[in-house]
This record gives sequence, structure tokens and C-alpha cells, in this order.
Amino acid sequence: MRSGANRMPERTESGPKRAADSRPLVVKVGGGNDTNLQATALELAALHAAGRRIVLIHGGNSELDRLSTALGNPPRFVTSPSGQVSRYTDERTLDAFMMTYPGKINTRLVEALQAAGANALGLSGVDGRLVVGTFKGSVRSAENGRVIILRGDNTGTVEKVNAELLELLLGSGYLPVLSPPAISHCNRAMNVDGDRMAAAVAAALGANELLLLSNVPGLLRDPSNEASLVSRVTLEEESAALSLAQGRMKAKVASATMAVRSGVTRAVIGDARGNRPVTDALNGNGTVFSC
Amino acid sequence: MRSGANRMPERTESGPKRAADSRPLVVKVGGGNDTNLQATALELAALHAAGRRIVLIHGGNSELDRLSTALGNPPRFVTSPSGQVSRYTDERTLDAFMMTYPGKINTRLVEALQAAGANALGLSGVDGRLVVGTFKGSVRSAENGRVIILRGDNTGTVEKVNAELLELLLGSGYLPVLSPPAISHCNRAMNVDGDRMAAAVAAALGANELLLLSNVPGLLRDPSNEASLVSRVTLEEESAALSLAQGRMKAKVASATMAVRSGVTRAVIGDARGNRPVTDALNGNGTVFSC
Repeated sequence: MRSGANRMPERTESGPKRAADSRPLVVKVGGGNDTNLQATALELAALHAAGRRIVLIHGGNSELDRLSTALGNPPRFVTSPSGQVSRYTDERTLDAFMMTYPGKINTRLVEALQAAGANALGLSGVDGRLVVGTFKGSVRSAENGRVIILRGDNTGTVEKVNAELLELLLGSGYLPVLSPPAISHCNRAMNVDGDRMAAAVAAALGANELLLLSNVPGLLRDPSNEASLVSRVTLEEESAALSLAQGRMKAKVASATMAVRSGVTRAVIGDARGNRPVTDALNGNGTVFSC
Repeated sequence: MRSGANRMPERTESGPKRAADSRPLVVKVGGGNDTNLQATALELAALHAAGRRIVLIHGGNSELDRLSTALGNPPRFVTSPSGQVSRYTDERTLDAFMMTYPGKINTRLVEALQAAGANALGLSGVDGRLVVGTFKGSVRSAENGRVIILRGDNTGTVEKVNAELLELLLGSGYLPVLSPPAISHCNRAMNVDGDRMAAAVAAALGANELLLLSNVPGLLRDPSNEASLVSRVTLEEESAALSLAQGRMKAKVASATMAVRSGVTRAVIGDARGNRPVTDALNGNGTVFSC
């Protein structure tokens, strides 16, 4: 792993060559309060206009927290014994999840992309069985030094992507805008991790690049110090990177390495708080994962 | 117009012939508390499995009322000078609209259809510019004997349907599940009438039949008497039917006659409160509109 306080570009891929690239670009943008969804949409619309095939996946955590709280069912997060953080998703939370992700955020993003000239189209993983996985139904939670099992948890894994549906839409010029929930093998809607969904989409489409953008500069050696960025991770350094990652960053690192292992050339964990989040990440700002 | 307390079938189109019918069936089911969405989904899944091309459009009024109220922005309805009833849709209401229609209700309906074996896929009118119209921005409201103009109303008309997108999905075996909002010519999301949207979809696809199902038996001579059903309306009787219709029924009658005028063979305003709402309407129970 290489640190990069100076954030030098890893590789520059802008310019006319990009327009001819037929391997899609898959971008996940997180749902933190300070992520710049509007800037992300504008940049993607410009790339789309230049001929790039693009799939956007979005989050919605902060908005969901607010809605759940307003509806009297405040969010509850659990930390698994291995340190993965996830949202406990009971039936009411799943309803609020649907309201927030495929409802308000997706529709507003599609509206913004349409206004920016891209023919965007929103789908959740439930639509057309776009993202299929295994329903968990319960979650192991490490609380006060012991592990308890919480039932009624409508979460699941990401296993299969309906790439034919995405190819159908990309082939007709649409810009698919995706979000969880996904659907289980036995047809239950379920909350899945958006980063893992994005990695699975990138792998299924044979994407060239996967950008995982949120409210951090990338993988940090010290989460409290944004200057401690790890600029480069090769597949051989996966374990070391995973052991550095804490909380939600674990899923991002696992998603980035999974994507590279599946043939995606580069995955970048980057920052969506600036005015050019997509350009910055394509220019190698963030943590770049590759072979 | 013909009254029909006995509700005799107008024309029977069930049986093996239907499976071979390549002209689609378009069904709108309203969002009243007592409409049987689950039964509607099950019946449509069975028709879909038999080879019928189907598009489902759904409402969500009752659910939206509850959500808006819970979020401290209770619903407000306005009656135009001509007697049309519509929801005043300010920015917060439009957000709640997105949460309810393309969010919770659409995703839950797609989940139910998938569980019933149909490969359903949900879209709002914003997605892929599926339903385009004119943004109104204000509404005329008749209040206490005078007409006032309410600004900040994110509503609009239904003018154009992206039939190519629906054909693309139908041709690949999907069952599209649609709802408002639609998108304006200048790319603003807007609340549009679901019945008019369904009629426009039926017209654009050259549908054979359009079913407008809600929590009434059909067009009634006396809204307080469910036995006063008008069983049959020809296109020549449109004005008479419109003058009978009150409140939300006006848009249903206008939608049904518009569809027939555009080449849809039959439009039926029927009841979605029973256990076989689709079969009942296809059997002519309700108010049948034709040439």
C-alpha cells in the first residue's frame, strides 16, 4: 500500500479516448448529508453526453435516518462480531427504506439527470430481479461484550445481477440509476449494502472502472486524520487494507477488491464532497484499487 | 347509457384466445384504503403467465394522506371551478408523493408480483421520460363562492408517453408497474392524474383493454347508491356521462373516453374491492366504455 498525502493522479484517462470506451463506468455515491449528489449528477450527464455508458448507484442513509425518526421508528445500527456495521431493518424500516431510496432520492436524482440532459431511468434491485441474493432474517450483534441474535432483520447478501436488463437499457441510451433494496431468491425485498451492489453490477457488466464515492477521502490509516490517505492498494494488499478499514469502510474495501478480482480494471474509493467528485476520482484522487 | 343493476357481462373475452392476444392490457388500480392490491397483483401475474402483455399503473392516495399527515404537512385538496378535485402538491407534498408512489407502494407491488411469478419492474413517469406533459405551477380553486389562484402547485398534464421504452420492456417479458409523478417538457417532476396516465399509456401502446379499478362499482347515477350503476357508455354518450360524474370520477370518465377515442377497444371503470377485480372488470362488471 502506498500513502499519498499529495494525492498525485494515478493514471489519467480523460480526453477523447474515453468517449469511445464501450466498457461502462459504474459510480456509487453515498447518502451522507455532505455528499454532493447534484455535482455528481452533472458530471455523469456530461460523460453520458460524450458517449460513455454509465450506471449510477446511490445511497440514502442520512435521509432514511431523518424519515425513520420523524415516523417514530428511529434508526438502530448493529456491529457484527467481525466489526461490520449495518442497519437493523425491521418491516417498518424497510418501508421507510423504500420511501427514501427508490422513492424520493432516486426520483429526484433521475429528475436532476434529465434536467442535465441524460436520459436517466431509476430501478431498485427488486425491479426485474435486478439484484438477487440470500435473505438473512437475523443479524449477530456484538453488544456489551457478548453476541446476541436479532431476528426480524430484512437484510441480505448480493449474489446475482440481471446484466441483460442493464445491457438492454444501456443499449437504448438510458442511464440506469439504481439503489437497494434487492430481492431474495424467494422474492422478499431486502436491504443490501449499496457498495457491494455497485461492485456486483460493475463485475456483471465487465465495467472498466468502479467509483465508490462518499464523505471521506478514501481509505485512511487513521480515520481521524484525512491526510493519512492510502493512495494505492493492489489485490495482494487486500488483507492489510481490510484490517485498516473500520465501520462502513470495511464493505467499501471488500467491494473494491471484489470488483478488481472480477475483472474491473480500477476501483476508486473517493470523495463526493467536492464540486468534481467524478473527475477527481477518475484522476486517481482517493484510494485506487487495481491488480 | 344503459343502467345495469343486474351487471350482465357485456362481452366475454376470457379463455384461450386471450393468451394469444398481442395487444396489451392496461390496468390502473387506485390507492384507496379498501382496494385489493394483492388480489389485483395475483390475477395479473396469472394473465402474464398465460402470455398476456400487461402494464399496471397504481395509485396511492390514502397512503400519501397518512404519510403527509405523519410528517406534519397534512393533505390539501382543491376543487376547480369545473368541479375537478386535485391534490395541492407543494414541494414537500411532492417529496412525500415520491416516497409513497414510486417508493413504498411501487416496490411492494413489484415484490408481490415477483412472488406471484411475474417479472415485474417499476418505473415512474420521470424514468426515461416515460410520461411527459406541461407543468402547471398553479391551480384555480373554487373556495366560498369565489375562485382563487394557488401557486407552488407541482402538478401537470399528461401529453406524451415513451411507448418505445414500454415496448422494449414488454418485448423482453417484463410486466411494467407504473405510477406518477410524470416529468414536464422542461424536466420538472410533477404530480399527474393516474387515470389519465393510464389512458395515455393504453392509447400509446394500442392496448386492447383499459381497466380503471378503484373503490367504487363504476360510474353511478347517484353516488350515494351503489346500485345505480351505469353499465354501458358509448362514445356518443360522453357528455352525458361526464355530467353525471362527480369529484374524482370526472377524470376516470374523461380517461376512459379518451382511451376509446384513441383506439382502445374497451375501457372499464370497475371495482377493486373484491377478490377478483381484474376478472370481474374483464367480464364487464362495472361501467364499460366503447364505440
